[in-house]
Amino acid sequence: MTSGHVTPSPRRDRVFMAYAVVLLSCAMQCRRALCKQWLHLFGRKSVAPSAHLHTLPMLSKPQQRRRQFHWTTGYRSRDVEFTHVQYNVQRLGFAAITTEDMAFFNDLLPGCVVTDPDILEASNVDWLRTMRGCSQLLLRPQTTEEVSQILRYCNSRNLAVNPQGGNTGLVGGSVPVFDEIIISTVQMDNIISFNSNSGVLTCQAGCILENLNNYLEEQDFIMPLDLGSKGSCHIGGNVATNAGGLRLLRYGSLRGTVLGLEVVLADGTILNCLTSLRKDNTGYDLKQLFIGAEGTLGIITAVSVLCPRKPAAVNVALLGCDSFEKILDIFKESKGMLGEILSAFEFLDYSCREVVCEHLKLQNPLQETPFYILIETSGSNDVHDQEKLNNFLEKVMTSGLVTDGTMATEENKIKALWALRERITEALVCDGFVYKYDISLPLEKFYEIVIDMRNRLGVRAKRVVGYGHLGDGNLHLNIVSPAFDQQLLDSIEPYLYEWIAQHYGSISAEHGLGFKKKNCIYFSKPKEAVDLMQQMKAILDPKGILNPYKTLPSFTWSSH
Amino acid sequence: MTSGHVTPSPRRDRVFMAYAVVLLSCAMQCRRALCKQWLHLFGRKSVAPSAHLHTLPMLSKPQQRRRQFHWTTGYRSRDVEFTHVQYNVQRLGFAAITTEDMAFFNDLLPGCVVTDPDILEASNVDWLRTMRGCSQLLLRPQTTEEVSQILRYCNSRNLAVNPQGGNTGLVGGSVPVFDEIIISTVQMDNIISFNSNSGVLTCQAGCILENLNNYLEEQDFIMPLDLGSKGSCHIGGNVATNAGGLRLLRYGSLRGTVLGLEVVLADGTILNCLTSLRKDNTGYDLKQLFIGAEGTLGIITAVSVLCPRKPAAVNVALLGCDSFEKILDIFKESKGMLGEILSAFEFLDYSCREVVCEHLKLQNPLQETPFYILIETSGSNDVHDQEKLNNFLEKVMTSGLVTDGTMATEENKIKALWALRERITEALVCDGFVYKYDISLPLEKFYEIVIDMRNRLGVRAKRVVGYGHLGDGNLHLNIVSPAFDQQLLDSIEPYLYEWIAQHYGSISAEHGLGFKKKNCIYFSKPKEAVDLMQQMKAILDPKGILNPYKTLPSFTWSSH
Repeated sequence: MTSGHVTPSPRRDRVFMAYAVVLLSCAMQCRRALCKQWLHLFGRKSVAPSAHLHTLPMLSKPQQRRRQFHWTTGYRSRDVEFTHVQYNVQRLGFAAITTEDMAFFNDLLPGCVVTDPDILEASNVDWLRTMRGCSQLLLRPQTTEEVSQILRYCNSRNLAVNPQGGNTGLVGGSVPVFDEIIISTVQMDNIISFNSNSGVLTCQAGCILENLNNYLEEQDFIMPLDLGSKGSCHIGGNVATNAGGLRLLRYGSLRGTVLGLEVVLADGTILNCLTSLRKDNTGYDLKQLFIGAEGTLGIITAVSVLCPRKPAAVNVALLGCDSFEKILDIFKESKGMLGEILSAFEFLDYSCREVVCEHLKLQNPLQETPFYILIETSGSNDVHDQEKLNNFLEKVMTSGLVTDGTMATEENKIKALWALRERITEALVCDGFVYKYDISLPLEKFYEIVIDMRNRLGVRAKRVVGYGHLGDGNLHLNIVSPAFDQQLLDSIEPYLYEWIAQHYGSISAEHGLGFKKKNCIYFSKPKEAVDLMQQMKAILDPKGILNPYKTLPSFTWSSH
Repeated sequence: MTSGHVTPSPRRDRVFMAYAVVLLSCAMQCRRALCKQWLHLFGRKSVAPSAHLHTLPMLSKPQQRRRQFHWTTGYRSRDVEFTHVQYNVQRLGFAAITTEDMAFFNDLLPGCVVTDPDILEASNVDWLRTMRGCSQLLLRPQTTEEVSQILRYCNSRNLAVNPQGGNTGLVGGSVPVFDEIIISTVQMDNIISFNSNSGVLTCQAGCILENLNNYLEEQDFIMPLDLGSKGSCHIGGNVATNAGGLRLLRYGSLRGTVLGLEVVLADGTILNCLTSLRKDNTGYDLKQLFIGAEGTLGIITAVSVLCPRKPAAVNVALLGCDSFEKILDIFKESKGMLGEILSAFEFLDYSCREVVCEHLKLQNPLQETPFYILIETSGSNDVHDQEKLNNFLEKVMTSGLVTDGTMATEENKIKALWALRERITEALVCDGFVYKYDISLPLEKFYEIVIDMRNRLGVRAKRVVGYGHLGDGNLHLNIVSPAFDQQLLDSIEPYLYEWIAQHYGSISAEHGLGFKKKNCIYFSKPKEAVDLMQQMKAILDPKGILNPYKTLPSFTWSSH
């Protein structure tokens, strides 16, 4: 089975996460470059990364686009405490790598077997620098057949493996906990086919999302998903984590847009469900098992995705509003009047506006008001889109739903408006120690938790802010204190998780459970569901070699 | 396990299907009413059913909308040969119903236990009148708890069950093969909630699709799916069969729009995954297992669905085209220029046009040409939509892609154009014996099989026609002969299935496998996938009591 004998230590988890954020905060104050780096992952548009990134020297097929993130300050990966020490995890009874194993891998993957500790470090530590494994072996297969042979061998030898894409995960799902063999998809980056009639792209799992989007844009198409980490994340990792992102409101989730997958199972079996058909009702849809399973049920080696046409026109409006109830009315109105061209409905409260203006000196074009909304439209006809947006704005302003508003149609003005929403994360880190939560809630409860938390924490919190993808019901609740405060944290958790559970929300909207949140699963899923997940895991990976210690709760926790 | 000791008899299957279509054909020629009845299930718009349907007398909560289809001719259900006789199926070792079992059910569901043979007949025979079970017990639970208690009892007693929604399936998945207890969702038709902010509808599984759509239209929303059988089919059945239909091009499949499910497992466990969140990445997405599993893994008792706003404007254009290659160019152009408002891209060839004009005397407003396309737009602004459509039409006509075209904006004209596409099925049945195939193919191969089949069959076929949802890659290949011809059938199958497999298509685009196609699964899925499906079945329904003899191939077949 998958889970190890982890001593549940949620407080330790929080403390270390907090510690990492303190470090990050210090670094931020030192160097603006780091803010940009952070923004590269969290912001909407990626910044030119050349100053902050470098290509790994051991890539057998050197390509500039294959990057790993490295801090440019003196803060090193090796300063991160080992995960198993931080969390007091007991290693499961997997085999250790022997000389014979090394000979097998060197023979199978000549030039693609990495044991250099300096290079391994980048794959052992997660992007947030909060987790650190101690893997001594990184494999970079190029074909599905190679992945199959690796897994067949590992399964027979009882060697644990850690599948890794761009290593941009935020919950510790993409790095080893102990000495799991890292299987990277970095060298599996071929586009297999693109059909401009059907819009179906088929590619290997290691293709970087931004590269795929650039490739498609040349043919007047786009990827149906867009993430802050697009410059680094792999499409296989996106699918394995069921990534949400900025285009979900318009194009729906990967569960609808991914048409086919090729997956290698724990025992090396290649499961070819790589069709590119929109309709196929022949038996159970097995590919869905692997979407969002975080590499614990199989390794995704190829993907086929349905891609929309590139929109010809994009417009943005920023609106002010004096009550949250009115925002729900505006959202409803926008779905009717903008309907098919609505591509983003983002939300921020006054406290977010304060923090971006204070720390980043951004100009707020609107008068002060409790809430702001950013609406984006994307369509095939600019004149029509602007007219629709104008009609909509006129309606919401004359009806008193909106107190103030501005609209942008030029690219630099659009960027300036987006910056007020996108740079909140960056501004908050400059504000103090940040407790970050990424949650889903029914819309009517969307802002209630922010008010509730503000009342609960009172002056102990420097700032409690709410922002996020309102159109998807995805709230980012962020709480700031001058420095890390354990008592404050204890006032937030588990109260917050219980509140979310009580209101039928999700404790992880789009980040997954990974290592860090796996024991919180019961706040969002009933025991019957988790039991069934454990059974699925047992069927697909009876020895538990695939990404162990992740996603599903450990036995000690599940048996309580 | 699920499958019985079925002697594979694909030829017998074909013969009987053919026999049924002959009967249907005869009936059609006798009564126009039957054409309407047929259209009710297959056509786009339902016709007033009052003359051809009647409400079952034993409904404890009589509601007119709960209908079962009954032929108005002298053709009776009891004329259908028993399925197990036709197909030489051996009954699996399930228990037979005892007096004690009856006492249990009567006590659990007073007034909702049906044993009257006349009423049972309607649930024992499928809508096509090609299959007939011999169940002697029909249960009509009203709550999830009742379904749970039924299954817990049946599982402990080893009694097989047949979940049934509107009984509109076309592959024999919705009726018993032997004496399985029929569990109907007909009395589970409550709308639980609708949130007009999020557009999420939550309801019991027995709600009729058309009723849900009517309910939503009052609030300016629509269901994301639309089927010919909407007047009878249940939403639970739609989800269990992963129904496609007419809105898939625009709103995507149920895998993206179904946000939550409540399911009762074989042992009576209630699996509550009935969230209404757009983003929830906490563990494996179990609800996907039950979408399209045809009731073989659990019984769906409630559904939550993301519903789009009702479009304010609908326009239709019919275009003529002289080559299939140009149609693909037109499709590509339409995705760019109509993009967000494109809601249907339907296709028919000259032979379809001939048959509707000949048998139904419909007027073709265009000159004769090898191919026709019907394009529908749905949007929020009629002026914009018409302008987009005009621009698009001007482009495709001036560039020579289209030879002729007409556009309709008024409802009666729109209906007249749709009739040319919708009434093909009806016209074909008047033309002779019809061999019907519902398949998915990559777009570039979409029409090739029609030409190939025409060449292969030559003068032996009276007509070989191709039409369907081109936008979804879903082709309806229909072959007509004056009367049933076994040699002709042998020339079609398995050649056709092998051709589909060779071109990575699907032998069942949207109808599922049910009883009739379960042994054809290997034409679309590799052995590794089918083996994994069998494992899923074994985990979720170890005794195989849920809808036995369906979806997955029988052992004798799978072991070959």
